[in-house]
Amino acid sequence: MNIQHYMENIGIAARDASRLMASADTKTKNLALKHIAHAILREQATLLAANQKDLDAARISGLDEALLDRLTLTEKAVHTMAEGLHQIANLADPIGEMNHFKYRPSGIQVGQMRVPLGVIGIIYEARPNVTVDAAGLCIKSGNAAILRGGSEAIHCNQALAKLVHEGLLAANLPTAAVQVVETTDRAAVGELITMKKYVDVIVPRGGKGLIERISDEARIPVIKHLDGNCHVYIDDDADFDKALRILENSKTQRLGTCNTAESMLIARGVAPTMLPKLAAMLISHGIEIRGCPETMTLVPEAKHASYEDYYTEYLAAIISCKVVDGLEEAIAHINHHSSQHTESIVTENYTKARQFLREVDSSSVMVNASTRFADGFEYGLGAEIGISTDKLHARGPVGLEGLTSLKYVVLGDGHVRT
Amino acid sequence: MNIQHYMENIGIAARDASRLMASADTKTKNLALKHIAHAILREQATLLAANQKDLDAARISGLDEALLDRLTLTEKAVHTMAEGLHQIANLADPIGEMNHFKYRPSGIQVGQMRVPLGVIGIIYEARPNVTVDAAGLCIKSGNAAILRGGSEAIHCNQALAKLVHEGLLAANLPTAAVQVVETTDRAAVGELITMKKYVDVIVPRGGKGLIERISDEARIPVIKHLDGNCHVYIDDDADFDKALRILENSKTQRLGTCNTAESMLIARGVAPTMLPKLAAMLISHGIEIRGCPETMTLVPEAKHASYEDYYTEYLAAIISCKVVDGLEEAIAHINHHSSQHTESIVTENYTKARQFLREVDSSSVMVNASTRFADGFEYGLGAEIGISTDKLHARGPVGLEGLTSLKYVVLGDGHVRT
Repeated sequence: MNIQHYMENIGIAARDASRLMASADTKTKNLALKHIAHAILREQATLLAANQKDLDAARISGLDEALLDRLTLTEKAVHTMAEGLHQIANLADPIGEMNHFKYRPSGIQVGQMRVPLGVIGIIYEARPNVTVDAAGLCIKSGNAAILRGGSEAIHCNQALAKLVHEGLLAANLPTAAVQVVETTDRAAVGELITMKKYVDVIVPRGGKGLIERISDEARIPVIKHLDGNCHVYIDDDADFDKALRILENSKTQRLGTCNTAESMLIARGVAPTMLPKLAAMLISHGIEIRGCPETMTLVPEAKHASYEDYYTEYLAAIISCKVVDGLEEAIAHINHHSSQHTESIVTENYTKARQFLREVDSSSVMVNASTRFADGFEYGLGAEIGISTDKLHARGPVGLEGLTSLKYVVLGDGHVRT
Repeated sequence: MNIQHYMENIGIAARDASRLMASADTKTKNLALKHIAHAILREQATLLAANQKDLDAARISGLDEALLDRLTLTEKAVHTMAEGLHQIANLADPIGEMNHFKYRPSGIQVGQMRVPLGVIGIIYEARPNVTVDAAGLCIKSGNAAILRGGSEAIHCNQALAKLVHEGLLAANLPTAAVQVVETTDRAAVGELITMKKYVDVIVPRGGKGLIERISDEARIPVIKHLDGNCHVYIDDDADFDKALRILENSKTQRLGTCNTAESMLIARGVAPTMLPKLAAMLISHGIEIRGCPETMTLVPEAKHASYEDYYTEYLAAIISCKVVDGLEEAIAHINHHSSQHTESIVTENYTKARQFLREVDSSSVMVNASTRFADGFEYGLGAEIGISTDKLHARGPVGLEGLTSLKYVVLGDGHVRT
């Protein structure tokens, strides 16, 4: 198989399909989504069998436990996929929305219309649910999608692709609106991320290595999330109970998510009274504390934090800790070390809360709330295709709107420029 | 001089300055802008002398007339620069603007805050006024700018840089907020467009060759405008007087701008009656018509349009012309051939106008208005740093808002996720 030729054909078909998707009406798109959800529930046994094939092959090739876990499709996961499609169908259609129409002194009326981006290339690993989530979001936002899942999930992804096509056909939409790349050849990714003519944006989902490689090699804009080195800063004016609750939830509710806190900063003024109790709470959850010398003095169990620790997204039962002068040092530390994902201040002080919100340069900034809230569902986006730590286009959780753009609309009555 | 080292130092200084600019208040930024405007008027003689040096050198090196024309600074241009800064000072400050705060079922309140992008790298040719316009827009939007003007304008750009620094100092803002690259070594551009760590976005302004080269080689997102192959479609239901007026203005008001019409489409139903008169108008303005066979039959003066003509941005007294079946063919032709800049339909038909607006995939779509309106001032943006034909982030004229991003703000009262 000539990969370049194969991918170019996919690109051409996607571009054509994207034109039809852009003009599809809301009812039609929702019909497709509901059909797919229905087909997924109906074919549950087929999907689980396909997944079993993938799992068997993965075990033989020695995939590690964490990846096997992500690859595994359960009955519950199948139902969640179908439920997710119904949720997307229930979201308002962003496409065609018009806003901000104003008359200008020249007499023309100028506003903006929300439009699809066109063709979205999505590259992901293991999790088969991404196939359905991404397809659903792209259909609803009037885009065409080219999905390139991990080779380890190829059987399940192909089975899902069939059901997605069934739903598109039932709604009289082009099946090329969602194409699943059928080759596991890595060269296909190389083509996908450089086909400027056919692909408008790339969304990579997976480990930091994958995302860095793709973003280095892509010749197409990438919406990406590298890592989540999230901070909780406990200010001099923090309420202790809120600090305890927020730190506990931010760090311990789930260890492996990108919005989990990986570092805590605490103001020197309250460190002697608060830090030992906060540390005891963390330790009771089995969290290892790696701290600065002052932390180590106040918390005997704490280990020494290296230079690298403050840059690290552990995704594990470890947190770095630093005692700081106060707000200014906390902001400077965060802006220097964080991955610009999510940071939270715990304080009762209005002025300091306001300064933190303004000056911390991350995609989500919070006052007296757990970093774990940084999520498309929690923010009311309904679903997310990823969380962007970039600044251009989409920042933070990326939902339907992140897959759209705005064009200018000018209404005149024979107006010309003078 | 070690260019890599030199550019890295510029990048580090810009990144540091961007933090201070992000937290600068509106009054301070406006003070800097007004100071710069004042200094430019005061130093008019110095600026004209520096420009004369550039012009002398350019004549010796044999720069062509068009470039010499763009390079030339007049007294009037100096006043326009100063006036532009006052206009930017008068625009509302986009930074810190907060919107869409809503309570979520979890109890948190989620909204968005507008923030600067950070460091903007601007690469441009000849025109010294870009130095001041770009500096003004970046200052007002709380960004730091690295400006790399053409080597042919180096004396004038350096003289302007001095005045920009004077204004920044007067407002107690860091002079590194606007840095003009002082070397004419081309390697400096190579560094600028790959310094991911220090530069957040690149805005190239100039010829298509320059922009294509930069966007191919950049490792940083680029806000770019490649070309403007703009269309006017005259529908079956067009009002003839409006068609005449709009076509005349779109094509003949200025030949060399990106929003000038380069192609006209006309519905077969009205071609026999309207096209000869429209062509006569164009010919009376000295415009050459290159058309399809039907055009050539109806307009004896028309020349044959090649395959390439329909893709061409002439920037000259030429227009391509095609007779089409009607709306569907017009939309398909435009979506295939245009550069996605600006397209206008002339029609009295509501349904067709609506379909054109929805289905034409360009950064500006218009009904009964001249393509010449596609411009930041005309749209009410106050000023523009360029017109984007990309879809991600900014599309169409890019003003202050295009130099900003949105971050999520979460307000809680000790809320945690369950």
